[in-house]
Amino acid sequence: MQRQELTSQIFKKRSYLCVGLDTDLRKIPHHLSGASADPVFAFNKAIIDATKDLCVAYKINTAFYESRGLRGWESLQRTIDYIPETHFRIADAKRGDIGNTSSQYAAAFFEAMPFDALTVAPYMGKDSVSPFLAYPGKWAIVLGLTSNEGSRDFQFFGAEEPLYSRVITRTMEWGSPDNLMFVVGATRDEQLLHIRELAPKHFLLVPGVGAQGGDLAKISRLGLNEEGGLLVNASRAILYADNGVAFAERAREVAAGYQAEMAVYLRESATGKQSR
Amino acid sequence: MQRQELTSQIFKKRSYLCVGLDTDLRKIPHHLSGASADPVFAFNKAIIDATKDLCVAYKINTAFYESRGLRGWESLQRTIDYIPETHFRIADAKRGDIGNTSSQYAAAFFEAMPFDALTVAPYMGKDSVSPFLAYPGKWAIVLGLTSNEGSRDFQFFGAEEPLYSRVITRTMEWGSPDNLMFVVGATRDEQLLHIRELAPKHFLLVPGVGAQGGDLAKISRLGLNEEGGLLVNASRAILYADNGVAFAERAREVAAGYQAEMAVYLRESATGKQSR
Repeated sequence: MQRQELTSQIFKKRSYLCVGLDTDLRKIPHHLSGASADPVFAFNKAIIDATKDLCVAYKINTAFYESRGLRGWESLQRTIDYIPETHFRIADAKRGDIGNTSSQYAAAFFEAMPFDALTVAPYMGKDSVSPFLAYPGKWAIVLGLTSNEGSRDFQFFGAEEPLYSRVITRTMEWGSPDNLMFVVGATRDEQLLHIRELAPKHFLLVPGVGAQGGDLAKISRLGLNEEGGLLVNASRAILYADNGVAFAERAREVAAGYQAEMAVYLRESATGKQSR
Repeated sequence: MQRQELTSQIFKKRSYLCVGLDTDLRKIPHHLSGASADPVFAFNKAIIDATKDLCVAYKINTAFYESRGLRGWESLQRTIDYIPETHFRIADAKRGDIGNTSSQYAAAFFEAMPFDALTVAPYMGKDSVSPFLAYPGKWAIVLGLTSNEGSRDFQFFGAEEPLYSRVITRTMEWGSPDNLMFVVGATRDEQLLHIRELAPKHFLLVPGVGAQGGDLAKISRLGLNEEGGLLVNASRAILYADNGVAFAERAREVAAGYQAEMAVYLRESATGKQSR
C-alpha cells in the first residue's frame, strides 16, 4: 500500500487505529475452541468483521502463530488472506539478518503472504534492512524505541546520543517516508517528541496503548503530522475485552472508543496546524 | 542438550563443525527437484546422512523455509525431526520481542519443534532474551558481533566501549555458560580475541567460514577454550559444493576437510594449554 492510500484511509475513517491480532489460543472464548477446526482463525475473522470499519491497519504478531507449529502457520495464512486489501497489513515479526537472508524474509512476508509491512530489528545494519525496502508499495517498520522494560538495556546506550536516535537517523538514509516507518513505544513521551523531530514525515507505529499503558491523547498530540503519520496499535485491550459469546461486540465497542478519540485528535491536529 | 554433552561430542568427534542448512530450493540439484514431493527435505536428508559423523551441530536458517510459506514450514518440521538427538540443533531465526512474545517464540522452537538453541537479536533487552533461558537444556545464542557489512552501522556505536561489547557483558548477567552463547562473525580477528576475553567460558557460534570468507585457523586459535567453546558454521561451502548427483559426496568431502583441520586445532589448543 502506498503512503497516499494509507493517509487517505486515515482521514476517511477518522482513525489511525491498528488492531493487533496477537491471538492466544488459550485466551479465546471457550465456545469457539471446540466449534471450529481453526478456532484462532474463527476468532480473528470475528474480530476483523467487528472492527474493520473502525481501523486502518491490522498487525499480526507472528510469534503467537509460530508457537503452534504448522497449524499456527495455517491460521496465520487464513487470517492474512481474510484481511481486506483496504487495510494496511503488518507482520509484526521483528526479522532482520544478513542481506541474502533478509531477502528470504522479504519473500516470506511480501510474496508468499500479502503483507504490506514487516517490523524489522536493526542490530545487523543496512544490508539487513534494505531488502525490505526494495519492494514497491511495501514497508519496513524498524524498531526505534520500544516500550518494554528491556528497552533500557541497549536502546539508550551511548554518550552524545542514545542508540535509538542513531538507529533512526542512520536508517532514514536507507529509505524514505514512502517505505520506512519506526516502532516507537507508547510509554515514552519525551522520546516520542524527540523522534518526531528526527523524523517529521515518517509514519510511527506505536504499540502499547491499552494493556501496555500508553496514553492515546499524549501520543496523538506528540505524534500526529499533516498526513496523520501515526498508527496506534491496541491488541489485548480489544481482543480480550470480553471472554464470552459477545466478545466481538465488546471488541467493537473498545475499538469504537479509540476511533472516536482519534477523530477528535485528528481534528485538533488539523486545527492546531491551521492556527500556527 | 547440556553443555557437558556438547563438549563430549566435540572431543569424541574431534570436530566443532556446525553445518548450516540454508537450503535454497533454487540451488539444489535438478535431479532432486522433480523426484520428490519435498525436494528441500530430500536434499537436507542427504546432506545430514553424509555429514553427521563429521559435525556436532546443525543450524537451520528459518528464513529459507519461511520464504516458501506453509510448504517451507513442512520442510523445516521434517528436517528438524530428522536430525539426530546427538547433534546440537540450532534455529537460526534471530527472534526477540517483548517478554510475552519471546515466550511464544520459545514455545515455537523449544516445544512445537525440538531445537536445542535459538539465535536471538538483543535490541529489546532483558525481557526479550530471558524467556529462552528459562528452559533447562535449551540455549539462547545472542547476536554479539556479526560478519556482514551492516555490522559497522550499529554494533560499533559508542564512545568508551562499542555496543557489541556492552551487549555481551550485559547479556552475560542474564544467563550462564550453560544456556547462553554468542554469535561472533568470523571476519573480525581482533574482536574475536576481545570477545573471548569478555566471555572466556561461553560457547561462541561463528558463522561465515567458507563462502563468507572467515579463516578457520585464526578463528580456532583465538576462540577455542578448554571445553572447545566454539561452533564454527559452514553453509554454502558444504551444501553447494557440487550441483550434480554427487552433491552429498562432495558435501561430505568439504565437511571432512573442515573436520580434519579442526582435529589439528583441538590438539594444538590442548597442547598449548598444557605448555603454558
